[in-house]
Amino acid sequence: MNKHIKSSGKGRVRFAKSNSDEHRPPTFEAFDTKLVTPRAPTTQALSVLDVDMHAAENKRAHNTIKYKNTNLIVRRNQEFFITISFDQPFNNQRDNVQMEFLIGSSPDENKGTYIVLPIGIEKSNGRWKSRVVDIRGNYVTVGVTPDASCIIGRFQTFVVVVSDFGKQRTERNTATDFYVLFNPWDPADQVYIPNDNQRQEYVMNDVGIIYNGEINNITSRSWNFGQFEKGVLDACLFVLDSGKVPLVYRGNATQLVRQGSALMNAQDDDGVLVGSWDENYSIGTAPTAWTGSTEILLKYAREGGVPVCFAQCWVYAGVLNSFMRCLGIPTRVITNYCSAHDNTGNLKTDIVLDEDGRVDRSRTRDSVWNYHCWNEVYMKRPDLPDKFSGWQVIDSTPQETSDGLYRCGPTSVNAVKEGELSYPFDARFVFAELNSDVIYRQSDKYGNTKIHHVDTAYVGKLLVTKRVNANSYEDITSNYKYPEGSDKDKQTMKNAENRGIPTRDYLPQPEAGVTMNIQVDTVKMGDNFKLTLNINNQTSQTRTINATITGSVSFYTGVVSTTFKLENKAATVNPQNTAKLQINVQAVDYMPYLVEQANLLFVVYGRIQETGQTISTMRVVTLRPPELTINVNGIPRVGKELMVIVSFRNPFTFILENVQLRLDAVGLMPTRMKSYNQIPPGGSVQYTEVITPQTPGRKVLIGSLDCAALRQVTNQLEIIVQ
Amino acid sequence: MNKHIKSSGKGRVRFAKSNSDEHRPPTFEAFDTKLVTPRAPTTQALSVLDVDMHAAENKRAHNTIKYKNTNLIVRRNQEFFITISFDQPFNNQRDNVQMEFLIGSSPDENKGTYIVLPIGIEKSNGRWKSRVVDIRGNYVTVGVTPDASCIIGRFQTFVVVVSDFGKQRTERNTATDFYVLFNPWDPADQVYIPNDNQRQEYVMNDVGIIYNGEINNITSRSWNFGQFEKGVLDACLFVLDSGKVPLVYRGNATQLVRQGSALMNAQDDDGVLVGSWDENYSIGTAPTAWTGSTEILLKYAREGGVPVCFAQCWVYAGVLNSFMRCLGIPTRVITNYCSAHDNTGNLKTDIVLDEDGRVDRSRTRDSVWNYHCWNEVYMKRPDLPDKFSGWQVIDSTPQETSDGLYRCGPTSVNAVKEGELSYPFDARFVFAELNSDVIYRQSDKYGNTKIHHVDTAYVGKLLVTKRVNANSYEDITSNYKYPEGSDKDKQTMKNAENRGIPTRDYLPQPEAGVTMNIQVDTVKMGDNFKLTLNINNQTSQTRTINATITGSVSFYTGVVSTTFKLENKAATVNPQNTAKLQINVQAVDYMPYLVEQANLLFVVYGRIQETGQTISTMRVVTLRPPELTINVNGIPRVGKELMVIVSFRNPFTFILENVQLRLDAVGLMPTRMKSYNQIPPGGSVQYTEVITPQTPGRKVLIGSLDCAALRQVTNQLEIIVQ
Repeated sequence: MNKHIKSSGKGRVRFAKSNSDEHRPPTFEAFDTKLVTPRAPTTQALSVLDVDMHAAENKRAHNTIKYKNTNLIVRRNQEFFITISFDQPFNNQRDNVQMEFLIGSSPDENKGTYIVLPIGIEKSNGRWKSRVVDIRGNYVTVGVTPDASCIIGRFQTFVVVVSDFGKQRTERNTATDFYVLFNPWDPADQVYIPNDNQRQEYVMNDVGIIYNGEINNITSRSWNFGQFEKGVLDACLFVLDSGKVPLVYRGNATQLVRQGSALMNAQDDDGVLVGSWDENYSIGTAPTAWTGSTEILLKYAREGGVPVCFAQCWVYAGVLNSFMRCLGIPTRVITNYCSAHDNTGNLKTDIVLDEDGRVDRSRTRDSVWNYHCWNEVYMKRPDLPDKFSGWQVIDSTPQETSDGLYRCGPTSVNAVKEGELSYPFDARFVFAELNSDVIYRQSDKYGNTKIHHVDTAYVGKLLVTKRVNANSYEDITSNYKYPEGSDKDKQTMKNAENRGIPTRDYLPQPEAGVTMNIQVDTVKMGDNFKLTLNINNQTSQTRTINATITGSVSFYTGVVSTTFKLENKAATVNPQNTAKLQINVQAVDYMPYLVEQANLLFVVYGRIQETGQTISTMRVVTLRPPELTINVNGIPRVGKELMVIVSFRNPFTFILENVQLRLDAVGLMPTRMKSYNQIPPGGSVQYTEVITPQTPGRKVLIGSLDCAALRQVTNQLEIIVQ
Repeated sequence: MNKHIKSSGKGRVRFAKSNSDEHRPPTFEAFDTKLVTPRAPTTQALSVLDVDMHAAENKRAHNTIKYKNTNLIVRRNQEFFITISFDQPFNNQRDNVQMEFLIGSSPDENKGTYIVLPIGIEKSNGRWKSRVVDIRGNYVTVGVTPDASCIIGRFQTFVVVVSDFGKQRTERNTATDFYVLFNPWDPADQVYIPNDNQRQEYVMNDVGIIYNGEINNITSRSWNFGQFEKGVLDACLFVLDSGKVPLVYRGNATQLVRQGSALMNAQDDDGVLVGSWDENYSIGTAPTAWTGSTEILLKYAREGGVPVCFAQCWVYAGVLNSFMRCLGIPTRVITNYCSAHDNTGNLKTDIVLDEDGRVDRSRTRDSVWNYHCWNEVYMKRPDLPDKFSGWQVIDSTPQETSDGLYRCGPTSVNAVKEGELSYPFDARFVFAELNSDVIYRQSDKYGNTKIHHVDTAYVGKLLVTKRVNANSYEDITSNYKYPEGSDKDKQTMKNAENRGIPTRDYLPQPEAGVTMNIQVDTVKMGDNFKLTLNINNQTSQTRTINATITGSVSFYTGVVSTTFKLENKAATVNPQNTAKLQINVQAVDYMPYLVEQANLLFVVYGRIQETGQTISTMRVVTLRPPELTINVNGIPRVGKELMVIVSFRNPFTFILENVQLRLDAVGLMPTRMKSYNQIPPGGSVQYTEVITPQTPGRKVLIGSLDCAALRQVTNQLEIIVQ
């Protein structure tokens, strides 16, 4: 009686955090026979000969047939069928048989990591359901329905025959392991999305388009999501294991997407991708060079969780998209043009100019990104009022920590639109990305700064995503914002202020009566070109403007790298009139300093002679890179060899060195890579690959060419395999 | 013009995270004289001879005079005065002088870590204010008001004289450093609390009472918060530095208390205290042995951030209380009796019993703590709707991770009461501590479990805190809960369910018509005693009950250590009648197995013979330890020696070994410790200390005696120094 078991006074509270760690239950568990009421000897107990998971049939019914994985994959709250064969006919009255499904190292019925389903007995207590569908002699077919909120991941299957003396369990057999995924087809699942076209796009489409460039010059690249490729599902579960996500949380979509957003970046938790904006990618792959997610996820899993180098926002968004679609959560990639990165969450993006109107890099810490990519996932938010269900922002680009870790979301898009910023998670940060005011401050040498110009409309001008079942973009700005200046927009700003967002407390600017804007056509990299500065005088007096035009090379994050042009021009503008100033830009001036994605930032700082007032404008020009061409010869047919030709010509007067060419063809072959030491000025390269399509349908060939001097050269070709 | 500065394309986004890292500005900064318009030679520039911070006068006005710290300490949004002496008379028209206040390694005006206040010129842009109060010859007195939401911490002071050629700055002088704290006296501060008695208790009181024991036997211990003791304020800032809390967040009370709750425990971040419930404290100090926070905070800082061993909930709460009061945030320690620790947040505390009605320790992971201590802080929540301002729960005992880290809160007490669980932070977890149902499940050897009994009223029965200006407890249960079963209580449960708390979906229990409860008087440790089991039969038939009484030694966390008693008794109870069963408990049975805090847990499992129904009840008995006595001889007077005598007698029949005696007297002396190798049975020890009070007023002497066989022996004596 006095058994003294030594234990911790705090009790056992550790949770299994790995799907790949296994508990191995014994094949025989004897009962304490002293406690058993003696009975007449029972008849010979059953033996289990085989368990058939009916992988192909079940997968077709569960929309999981596209996964290149030999095991069964099912979705929550949808029945699947297993046939057990015994050594003798099964008798429902006599035989006590249980199915057991286990996940992780400490299976526990209370935690949903150990499922016990007696065959032929209705189970009242658990949440998975089972029923006998058919008994034919030695064969029993059972229908099993995982509950709508069960843990997702890889489960082990055992069959147990219970006798008076103990439990006889089948041996561990990995062929009977099966995966359970989220179910966007089922109304009871947290990630249910009603429209089938949306499910086909946001869950089943394994190729997508990511928009980039800048707001006046929207460009795009195709991306291989590859969620059905061989090994990708296991890689995604490995990501969760590597991030020590407790199994008990893995059925909760809110928790899962939040953890997912943290786990795509290497910060804090050795997640999938290392971010770099440093232009030196020699120890890894340049962010611009990737063509899709498959290569990244498989490399991360193959190397046991070593973060992959390197990513920028669209790479994070692309891989997070793959991860979510793979687990069955409807997801899409969003591009926000003119996205503020507000370091202090005060809804003010401070641009500090020096006395000459140039950006003071040492004092400017906030920035406006030309574009920023994040993701949206579609789900119910049972933790929030109903109106905040639907699309949720998640973002794994490591911009700022959220409550201590680099992650962002899920943030209800509806809550952002209404300025309802109290609810979790990270609504304030997302709101600032879309609604910050740009404040130009000017500082003198005494260290005094003053507000020189405020632009309330520059940030969050346009949000886009790939259209369902089409290769063009859909403008989804109105999901996030009411029209600038409308009553509802004002209400949103008021709501935000009531939730602790600082008020717009800077003084209103005196009206100068003169405005400027910069006009420019599309420019090819390496071309000389002209800018037009339009100066509009709305006053009734003549105005003379002394304009300082600064031309800089900049990153897509708005961070300025090199100033290559500084020019002063003056114009006299008649009342109610517009003057045009031409500014010539020479390739020899900017080419030596270009950084990736080839953005030029022009800032004009104007001083009105008559009044002493100052005005500003800025404009980003994204230069068009030379073209990569992809062709196939012949008509693509299943089982027939097809030749793919990728070619490129160096149009520049300098040598391109250490050039990497990538060809990715989702569902046709793994990613191929080819390196060239040099491509001389005017020189061409041509790369040929022979592939044999295995399945019919639409396929996308994605190519990229990348070297230090030239990044972001990509193209794609869609083919229909017959 | 073509200056190519190499930089990261993501910009500079690192924040200073340490108050002790310093930026050393140059003593002279030359201007680029080419850019300066030549002027006639200026008159001889001023030199600064001295900066007087008026520490004593300012501290009296700012309620900070009690801090044993020679530097100035001020509170936000309240003016303080500095006098600058120059080598010649100051001329407001001619002289350009600035005060600079810096904090951390990268001072920045936009981030509030660099404050520039020109003397005599009104500053429009910044948020700190200054004004010239008095000019007398070479002496200028300036009034400075930190803004109501500024960063708290230690600032450096410089005075800068600006000439045409540059800036002349005073040398670094630590004597002019000053601390800024939260200001509960000021309505504009986030932590304003209107009632002065509350400020005196929750901010200024440096000794408190923490309640423990169990709900039927409430006991208490005094605690030295010691927030004004020498070195404690620096230790608290060191805790923030050690936890890498960005300086820019340190003015935001919501952020600060959340970070504080994370930093008191060593998990994740090498915070202040290592938790242990393992009964083996030989490498540190037993949680029960501490008498206050001073010793712990100073040790942590002195050893450079090595976590201190060991803590349990009241130690975490005591130290967190000191930390908050020290920084100026109103705080109190709360004790929640019958506090559920629900591992999965499903609002069900599962107690799994085996076939004999004994707790199955291997399958019971949730537990009900006899009591659990946390803290409340008082503050506005600008991030939430107004009604959720006021008292907020924070808890640094590492029970469960909150969004990835061990921390809890701030959780609005009002939101918990209303079941409004969507708002940050951790409302769900706190709600479960107060509102879980205890579900007794019974499992048979086949692994089938069934619900045997549900108790919806066991958890969260009573919450208490020390009363303002009194040494008794205040029942604050109604702050957290509406009366059990009331309409408002039902509405709260409904609100919680609408926010994703699982419904109470178990089947209603059939009414047995028989109830049991256990009655017992106060019991001294080492005594034999009697329990009375009252069995009440509400039916109209006679009932025979077979009762199994299990007696176990248990921790205050509800975790069972050793079962020392198992007894079967039967009783026949007439209709509408009550029977009493006596159960004798012998000291020899339980004494060898006692664990700290000496709790005995009795579980009675009853089977009604006539109906086969089962009923349960449980009761914790906390044994009263032997007494520690504290006496002083003579009348305590300032400057006069006073003798303190602490004495103890071992009433047991066994030897007490490695006994530690602690004496703490807040404001009188540092904590003193004395060790005894052995105290034989019946033996006494007496420890004498001579102290000389330096200040008059109420002082509390706190003593504790601790050894492996006997923990939680504490006492206190209040004296008035004249």
